[in-house]
Amino acid sequence: MKSLKRTGPRTKTVKYDPPYQTFSWKGDRLDLLDQRLLPNQERYFECRTGADVVEAIRQMVIRGAPAIGIAAAYGCVLEALRIEQDEVGAFQRALERFSRQMEEARPTAVNLRWALERMRAVGLRSGWKRVPDIRKALAREARRIHAEDLEANWRMGQAGSRLVPRRSKILTYCNAGTLATGGYGTAAGVIRACWRRAQTVEVFACETRPFLQGARLTAWELMREGIPVTLITDNMAGYLMGAGRIDCVIVGADRIAANGDVANKIGTYGLSVLARKHKIPFYVAAPVSTIDFACPSGREIPIEIRDAGEVTHMAGVAIAPQGCRALNPAFDVTPHGLISAIVTEGGVIRPPYRTRLRKLKK
Amino acid sequence: MKSLKRTGPRTKTVKYDPPYQTFSWKGDRLDLLDQRLLPNQERYFECRTGADVVEAIRQMVIRGAPAIGIAAAYGCVLEALRIEQDEVGAFQRALERFSRQMEEARPTAVNLRWALERMRAVGLRSGWKRVPDIRKALAREARRIHAEDLEANWRMGQAGSRLVPRRSKILTYCNAGTLATGGYGTAAGVIRACWRRAQTVEVFACETRPFLQGARLTAWELMREGIPVTLITDNMAGYLMGAGRIDCVIVGADRIAANGDVANKIGTYGLSVLARKHKIPFYVAAPVSTIDFACPSGREIPIEIRDAGEVTHMAGVAIAPQGCRALNPAFDVTPHGLISAIVTEGGVIRPPYRTRLRKLKK
Repeated sequence: MKSLKRTGPRTKTVKYDPPYQTFSWKGDRLDLLDQRLLPNQERYFECRTGADVVEAIRQMVIRGAPAIGIAAAYGCVLEALRIEQDEVGAFQRALERFSRQMEEARPTAVNLRWALERMRAVGLRSGWKRVPDIRKALAREARRIHAEDLEANWRMGQAGSRLVPRRSKILTYCNAGTLATGGYGTAAGVIRACWRRAQTVEVFACETRPFLQGARLTAWELMREGIPVTLITDNMAGYLMGAGRIDCVIVGADRIAANGDVANKIGTYGLSVLARKHKIPFYVAAPVSTIDFACPSGREIPIEIRDAGEVTHMAGVAIAPQGCRALNPAFDVTPHGLISAIVTEGGVIRPPYRTRLRKLKK
Repeated sequence: MKSLKRTGPRTKTVKYDPPYQTFSWKGDRLDLLDQRLLPNQERYFECRTGADVVEAIRQMVIRGAPAIGIAAAYGCVLEALRIEQDEVGAFQRALERFSRQMEEARPTAVNLRWALERMRAVGLRSGWKRVPDIRKALAREARRIHAEDLEANWRMGQAGSRLVPRRSKILTYCNAGTLATGGYGTAAGVIRACWRRAQTVEVFACETRPFLQGARLTAWELMREGIPVTLITDNMAGYLMGAGRIDCVIVGADRIAANGDVANKIGTYGLSVLARKHKIPFYVAAPVSTIDFACPSGREIPIEIRDAGEVTHMAGVAIAPQGCRALNPAFDVTPHGLISAIVTEGGVIRPPYRTRLRKLKK
C-alpha cells in the first residue's frame, strides 16, 4: 500500500490544541471523528479510499463547509494513491473524473468545489513527469488547505472577538466549531477567542433540527473547554431575544454570494429576522474560501434537499406517523441586508458587501 | 364504588365523529388517550381519582388549553366521588381544597382555572342539602363544559374558514386539534372546516420541539382524515414563507390577555414575526374561555418553565452531552400587534382587540 507523510496541518500562529481530532491524516488513510455518533460515542470513521470520503461527506460523518473542503482534499490524495495508472495523462484523467464526482456529494457548501479546484490546479497542471511526484504534491496541497483554514479560523477569532463586548450573551446556531473546520472554528472560533480574552461570555446554542448539530456538537465542543453553554430548541430564540437575554448572534456560513447573501443551515434566516426585530447584531463568520465570487446573489445558491426520513425519525425512532410527508431543505439564505458584519480572516467586513468582499478575492 | 352517568358531551350542532376519543367518560373513571405515546401507540391512561387527572395534566398525557380545562372538570367529578364526607359543608371544603391544588398543575393555560371556577360555582354554592345531588350536578357541569367547548370549536371552524381562501397553504403549529380540545379543534377546527367545504387546502405542520405535538399529534390527526399535511421542523417556516409557499398561519392559544396578546406554545412568537415580515396573515383560534379578561397584557401571563430533560432527551435518548444545561420555557407571548385576527365562537375579532374582545365577556 502506498503511503505519504502522516502529518496534518502545520501552523505557527494557532495556539489551540483541541482534546479531540476532527481529522486524523495517516498518510494512506483519513480518520474522521464520526459526527453522527456524537456526543454519545467518540468513534472514528476510517476512509481508505476517495469513495469512502465521498460517502462520509454525503452521510454527514463530517459536515460544516470548511471541513467538507478539507476532507475532499484529503479524499483526492487517497484517490491518487489508489489510481493504478503510471502514465501521467491517464492518471490525471482519472483524478479529474473522481474530483468531478466528488463535487456532487453536497451541493450548497462552496468550499467543496473550491478545495477540489485547488487540488485539480496542482494535480492536473502540465509539466508533471512522474505520478509519485503528483501524489506527493497533492498531499502537500491537502495539508496546506487544512493548515490555511486553521489559520483563517484563528484570525477570524481575533477579529471577530473585538465585535463582542465582555459579558455578552451570544446566540449561536448549528455547529461552526472545531468539528466544522480545520480546527478552532468560525463562529465558535470567535466565541473561543472571546472566552480566552476574558472568561465572561455565555453561549446559547440552538439545537438545530433535524440533525441536531447544536445539541450534539456545539454544546459538546464548548463544554469540553468549560465555556458556559445553555441548549435551547430552535423555536426558543425569539422568546430569549424578547426577554433581552441575547446580545448578539454569531453563525457560520456554507456559501456567501458576491453581494453578501449567506446560505447557512436551515433556520438561520429566521434567526436573522428575529435579530433585526430586536435590534440585536447578527454576525456571520466564514473564511474567504466560503465566498463564491461567481455567484451574484443568494437566489443562485443551490439549496440541498435531504431525505425526509431525517425529519420524521430521530435516532432511529419514528417521531411522526408512518407515511407522513416531510420536507427537508438543509439550508436557507439570509439576505445581506439582515447581516451586521461578516467576519473573515481578512478582517471584519461591513456593508456595502459587494465592493468590500471583492477586495478579499485572492 | 360510586358512579355517575357515563355519557360524554351532547351537542346537536356538531357533525363530527372522530375515529378516536380524546376523553372517554365512564361515570366513575376518565380514560384519556395518552398523548405522550402517540403516534406510535394508541393507549388510554385511566384516571380513577382527581389526583390521577392532576398527574395526567402535569405529565402531558393530555395537553392543549381547552382539553386541560375539560379534564380538570372531570377530575373534580372523580374527586367528588372519592370524598367520604356526607356533610355538605365538609364535602365542599374538601372539594375546594382539591380544586385549588389542581389549579397549580399547569400555570399558563387559563382554561384550567376557568373550568375549575365553573365547577366551584356549582359545587360550592349555598343551598345544597345532599352530597349525592352535588355530585350529580358536578358531573352535569363537566359534561356541559365539554359539550360547550366542542360546540365552540365547531363555530370557530365555520367562522374561521371564511378567512381562508380555497387552495390555501396553511401553516399550523403545535396541536390545536381534536386532541387539544373537546373535539374538532381550534386552529385544526378551522382547517377541518376548510377541508370539508372544499378539499383544496394543504397544511404544513411544524413539528414543535421539544414535545413534538406537531409531528406526533397534528400530523396524526390530519392524516387520519385524509387532510394533506407536510411535516417541517420549526426552523423551516421562514424558508417556506420566503419561497411564497405559505398563504396563512393559524395557531391556537393557551391564554389571551384582555389586550389581545396571546400566550401559546413556545415558538409561536417567532412565527408571528416571520409572518409579518412576509405579509402573511397570522390568525389565532381560541374559545372565549381562553380569554383572561383579568389579565391586562401578555406581560402578566405566567410562563411555565418545564424540566430541561425534555430538551436534552428525546424518546429516552440523550441528544445532548451529559450534564448539558438547557432551558425549557413552554410558552411565549405574541403581541396583539402581530395578530391579524382572533377567531372565537363569537365570531372573528379584528383589532382593536381590547374593546372588541370585551364584548365577548359572558
